[in-house]
Amino acid sequence: MVLVSPRNPLNIGAVARALANFGFAQLKVVAPFEAHWREARSAVGAPELLAAATETASVADAVADCTLVVGTGTLTYRKPEQPVVSLPNLSPLVERELKRGGRVALVFGPEKHGLTREDLSYCHILVEIPTDPRQPSMNLGQAVAVCLYELSSWASEPEKSEADERPAAPSADLDLLAGVVEEAMLAAGYSPRTMQPANRHDLRLLLRRLSPSKKDARRILGLFRRILWRLNRGTGEADEE
Amino acid sequence: MVLVSPRNPLNIGAVARALANFGFAQLKVVAPFEAHWREARSAVGAPELLAAATETASVADAVADCTLVVGTGTLTYRKPEQPVVSLPNLSPLVERELKRGGRVALVFGPEKHGLTREDLSYCHILVEIPTDPRQPSMNLGQAVAVCLYELSSWASEPEKSEADERPAAPSADLDLLAGVVEEAMLAAGYSPRTMQPANRHDLRLLLRRLSPSKKDARRILGLFRRILWRLNRGTGEADEE
Repeated sequence: MVLVSPRNPLNIGAVARALANFGFAQLKVVAPFEAHWREARSAVGAPELLAAATETASVADAVADCTLVVGTGTLTYRKPEQPVVSLPNLSPLVERELKRGGRVALVFGPEKHGLTREDLSYCHILVEIPTDPRQPSMNLGQAVAVCLYELSSWASEPEKSEADERPAAPSADLDLLAGVVEEAMLAAGYSPRTMQPANRHDLRLLLRRLSPSKKDARRILGLFRRILWRLNRGTGEADEE
Repeated sequence: MVLVSPRNPLNIGAVARALANFGFAQLKVVAPFEAHWREARSAVGAPELLAAATETASVADAVADCTLVVGTGTLTYRKPEQPVVSLPNLSPLVERELKRGGRVALVFGPEKHGLTREDLSYCHILVEIPTDPRQPSMNLGQAVAVCLYELSSWASEPEKSEADERPAAPSADLDLLAGVVEEAMLAAGYSPRTMQPANRHDLRLLLRRLSPSKKDARRILGLFRRILWRLNRGTGEADEE
């Protein structure tokens, strides 16, 4: 579970408690407000997993080793750029990913504004808790509890052995690939330099839609490295290879 | 929903919020601590249903008109005197009761000790949230949210499987893309010409594993066309774009 810049120490405590209740152990906190984070960790009866929580500077770092990143939040006021899954339909996706050796992250944004567009661009899918449209915004601790309840219930389900699949490339591999593709785009004059931030954003989303396996990501990386090298060398002679 | 002697105003607020989130309207509060109850009701942004909540002196009064009363709480330290249902199995029972015109109450006890044996004696069944046995005791607001999520989910039963319905690119689009990528591979001297048939085969499989949408396939095609054009032009000058 990844928690981005949580503000309220009570909420941080509630998140940790829900993790413990439903048997999840790992918490990463992105750019927390230090005072609140310290307060939450030192609270009486704070679960061990708060002490063991990892701190990272960015969402990218927090999900670097994850192969399926699930974003959360109210979608009422924004048009999602990723597939949206209703919470009751999330378990099979998570289960399949874990079965094929992947790592899954569930990402929650700050209380007030939720995840930014930039945060969300690291997500493969978004999950929506089905709520009353008149009152869609949930308390952070409660939203976390509901999601973990739903995800923990799959664990108690009898094994459905499914033909296993390739593990997806972790987020860090996609970022590495995106960097090289972006360089190739620039070297090829694919679009004006002013479009670079928008292209980078779109590319991040595109790679997550494609969700290549680790091996395929490496293959594509190899091709783009070669292309980049050739573009930068800037000669048109045919190689004798 | 019946809340017995809640202590923490924040918890009362959280309960009310969860009720609103999941489309439940009715809250009864049994023998509340008056000061805390007043504080919760007057909190900024308190949902309307808190103002509309009914106060009763006893559990008996609160559930007087109910035909199915469901008790909640941690059962680790007591021997239940009623049938115990795991939360995921509760919905069908509630649904059946409502279908036949009954009224259902979900009863939550005070934060510290939960429902008394006396309180429980008004319950037809007990519900248990499946949790990690090492950490079974949930926060009140979170337990309520999880129960209401589970109960509300049956209401939204009509499966809207809106998960990722983007149409994949048809085979012909993939072949078109493969042709351009192959040319780019050759132009970049990616691998010896003798490898071409094997590469073509691998590329065909790779594109089908990625299964891009029609739109994404067109995007990737655009990038490779640009790269190919630049590779074939064979000059290294930067474009003025």
